[in-house]
Amino acid sequence: MLQGKMKRGFCVSFVVWVVVVAAGFASVDGLNVWPMPESVSKGLSSLYLSKGFRLLTEGSEYRDESGILKDGFLRLLDVVESAHVVDGNWTGYDSLAALEGLHVVVFSPSDELQYGIDESYKLSIPATGNPIYAHLEAQTVYGALHGLQTFSQLCHFNFETRIIEVHKAPWVIKDQPRFSYRGLLIDTSRHYQPLPMIKNVIDAMAYTKLNVLHWHIVDSQSFPLEIPSFPKLWNGAYSPSERYTMDDAVEVVQYAQRRGVNVLAEIDVPGHARSWGIGYPSLWPSSNCRQPLDVSNEFTFKVIDGILSDFSKVFKFKFVHLGGDEVNTSCWTVTPHVKNWLKKQGLNESEAYEYFVLRAQKIALSHGYEMVNWEETFNDFGNKLNPKTVVHNWLGGGVAQRVVAAGLRCIVSNQDQWYLHYMETTWPQFYMNEPLTNITNPKQQELVIGERLWTPFDKLAKDPNLVAGRLAHFRCLLNQRGVAAAPLFGNGRAVPNYPGSCYKQ
Amino acid sequence: MLQGKMKRGFCVSFVVWVVVVAAGFASVDGLNVWPMPESVSKGLSSLYLSKGFRLLTEGSEYRDESGILKDGFLRLLDVVESAHVVDGNWTGYDSLAALEGLHVVVFSPSDELQYGIDESYKLSIPATGNPIYAHLEAQTVYGALHGLQTFSQLCHFNFETRIIEVHKAPWVIKDQPRFSYRGLLIDTSRHYQPLPMIKNVIDAMAYTKLNVLHWHIVDSQSFPLEIPSFPKLWNGAYSPSERYTMDDAVEVVQYAQRRGVNVLAEIDVPGHARSWGIGYPSLWPSSNCRQPLDVSNEFTFKVIDGILSDFSKVFKFKFVHLGGDEVNTSCWTVTPHVKNWLKKQGLNESEAYEYFVLRAQKIALSHGYEMVNWEETFNDFGNKLNPKTVVHNWLGGGVAQRVVAAGLRCIVSNQDQWYLHYMETTWPQFYMNEPLTNITNPKQQELVIGERLWTPFDKLAKDPNLVAGRLAHFRCLLNQRGVAAAPLFGNGRAVPNYPGSCYKQ
Repeated sequence: MLQGKMKRGFCVSFVVWVVVVAAGFASVDGLNVWPMPESVSKGLSSLYLSKGFRLLTEGSEYRDESGILKDGFLRLLDVVESAHVVDGNWTGYDSLAALEGLHVVVFSPSDELQYGIDESYKLSIPATGNPIYAHLEAQTVYGALHGLQTFSQLCHFNFETRIIEVHKAPWVIKDQPRFSYRGLLIDTSRHYQPLPMIKNVIDAMAYTKLNVLHWHIVDSQSFPLEIPSFPKLWNGAYSPSERYTMDDAVEVVQYAQRRGVNVLAEIDVPGHARSWGIGYPSLWPSSNCRQPLDVSNEFTFKVIDGILSDFSKVFKFKFVHLGGDEVNTSCWTVTPHVKNWLKKQGLNESEAYEYFVLRAQKIALSHGYEMVNWEETFNDFGNKLNPKTVVHNWLGGGVAQRVVAAGLRCIVSNQDQWYLHYMETTWPQFYMNEPLTNITNPKQQELVIGERLWTPFDKLAKDPNLVAGRLAHFRCLLNQRGVAAAPLFGNGRAVPNYPGSCYKQ
Repeated sequence: MLQGKMKRGFCVSFVVWVVVVAAGFASVDGLNVWPMPESVSKGLSSLYLSKGFRLLTEGSEYRDESGILKDGFLRLLDVVESAHVVDGNWTGYDSLAALEGLHVVVFSPSDELQYGIDESYKLSIPATGNPIYAHLEAQTVYGALHGLQTFSQLCHFNFETRIIEVHKAPWVIKDQPRFSYRGLLIDTSRHYQPLPMIKNVIDAMAYTKLNVLHWHIVDSQSFPLEIPSFPKLWNGAYSPSERYTMDDAVEVVQYAQRRGVNVLAEIDVPGHARSWGIGYPSLWPSSNCRQPLDVSNEFTFKVIDGILSDFSKVFKFKFVHLGGDEVNTSCWTVTPHVKNWLKKQGLNESEAYEYFVLRAQKIALSHGYEMVNWEETFNDFGNKLNPKTVVHNWLGGGVAQRVVAAGLRCIVSNQDQWYLHYMETTWPQFYMNEPLTNITNPKQQELVIGERLWTPFDKLAKDPNLVAGRLAHFRCLLNQRGVAAAPLFGNGRAVPNYPGSCYKQ
């Protein structure tokens, strides 16, 4: 993995959009919901949110004892009402009908968040009724949260009435994600991210219906996380204050979970782990040749075991990420004791790399995890990988088709199209990147667990310019909610070149 | 005023810092408070914030009926506790003493926020006592809020104890601002800023003890604000949704006031006002020559009167900003009816510009305001300006000394040093910019009401590198609080070039 993979904070980086959105504020069909739901029908009536707009949950199997749904509903009101001051005294409702609340029915009593759970929902907003309630049905509370996000995007402050309105009722939206893994990576090793910043990223993920925060916690540069089993590991932090306690990690996981976001924790072994040896120098082949981790030292695997044991108490996602990319084994062959060990074991350097990765996989399995590994492990010894491995593509295109042909699962995130910190990548490139390129066998298609994609393939625009207006609208909505999403024009994270409307930048 | 003056969101933009902070995390004297208080003494004892850390207000004349102090205290706890999860069960307090709360005594019963109010405070944190309380005294609640900000910067999460500690007690800090006007300009005409973004800016201003949000509301590009007296004015908004209701403006003013920040509202007449004519085309000299505002039309001044009348109900700051910069009068001389009017009045174009500005000033005075005008008005007809005028410098250095010699007040914000969107300006240039340059007469010094400076002159570092560590610490603290303050290295708003500690970037 290139060290540049990480980025600071969250930024929807869409670049160099060369077609001017002359129309301005609306997409072609006037439907400004992002991402586009699976199916949408709408009407012509206008409703307003009544003063006492409330959440009803009659008929739910889900009891919401932890308040996930209730809090989600309060956040919905909060983002919808933070745009402008709502007039609580306005009384000219004659031509409008009151929407009294949202009736949410969740069928599953469980609030377990896990890979592959049902995230579908159905949102209906009738145009008439006495009283009128919107109706949201979902198998799980997390599907319901997605429905709330969609509902929030149908709400508009009306500058005449000074109240929140929903236009174009009746609405019927049936929706579910195309891919069950929709991730965003943050790297807290290269740049420490304070807890409030990580929470901001999670908020933004919820707005965009992403569901996996891939937390690249540690790397060569720093080791910010407390590991109770090996308490000197976070001596490798950049500074005393640039650290996370395990309680902080719990806080991140819980904050994410309550928003329907899983946390995929990563340790990147053996190649991206130089910081480990600050606390435990014996993890280095030697003090002047510091990575990969010393493959010859049993202590190395004891530490990995301790980390994954500690992880398993906090990171309840089905997967753990074991890295495994960019392993330069020269320290193993120039360091006498490692070299001797290799000889004794009858392993050459690439076999030792394989040995390391596979042994780490076994440790992960012993703690109940399935594993994600970067694609080099597949490229180098794919047929040896445990069948429970998910291969994480990053180097470029074309990998997924080989991975799934080998019967393994794959996460697509080719850097040429989907690295947010590549400022020169245009947003249409992001949009047009198709994870199932050249994968036509339905069984193989199922093995691509995705990365970041919600909308069904046949609802995606063939020409990204057709969604530019809707995307601009969504970007302005993110700004409205305090997320500093960058303009569509210009380089990633660039400021607008000229004064102008948010919707045209 | 250059159209580039505005910037998007808030960003502490400090640039190209060429001296490496080898030491890393601490300033020279270990005092990481920004801005530097007037006087500080400290000791060697460590305290911790007890679980029930609370606010006491016995002895205050201030009743806090609107909860300004209480909310400020809750925000203090919030920013201090958001960094890491505090261990509520930790019991190993043996070597530490408990700080049970903060006793705040405010002498003035009034919570009026206005230019020139007393913002001083005295913060004492004793090392012993039974129980131990910190003590904060202030003339006004707004001075007390500054004291709370300083207190928050003395709090540290201890990774051993997992609780919030205050080190180096006993503390005695006496503090007050050097300048009573410490402003930051946002421009919502060139780029609409959603309400939550403006609130974020105000939060960041409170952290840095700035006290005037200079709201450059409208300009040639767009007219986002509702003006009840002339309800078509905001037809000049970029789009229907990029608007503020008057209730939104009230919300901004109240949000700011509760954080000790005044709002200086600006209309920039007659030169920066093209957007006004979208709703009322007769404000333009003609439909193809659209600014300055038509000086010959009585309706122009009626509109200004209506705006300032509406402003006076919402913007309670003593000053209103009337702009007056960059007036190109050619539309007046090429438009027949204006040209005829000029002839009839016996005015040449520069006399008409003066006539316009002075008439606008009279309108402002009639609504109880004193006026701020950009420096061109002083440069062109300074001796005609109303004595209540504050001249706002922006073009470059050397203006303030001429202004105060003429007996007028001046706000210094020379663009070469203090424009945040000039990405090539280094933070040491910001830091070293001295508003009183060449102004030695104490009476004249008093006329420079400042812009953005807190610390007494003799406590400012002569070499900015001496404060680099403390500034880096403060920048990381802002990040910690969710403010995306940029690294000290690199261009303004740039991302870090390389992985590394926040404290070294």
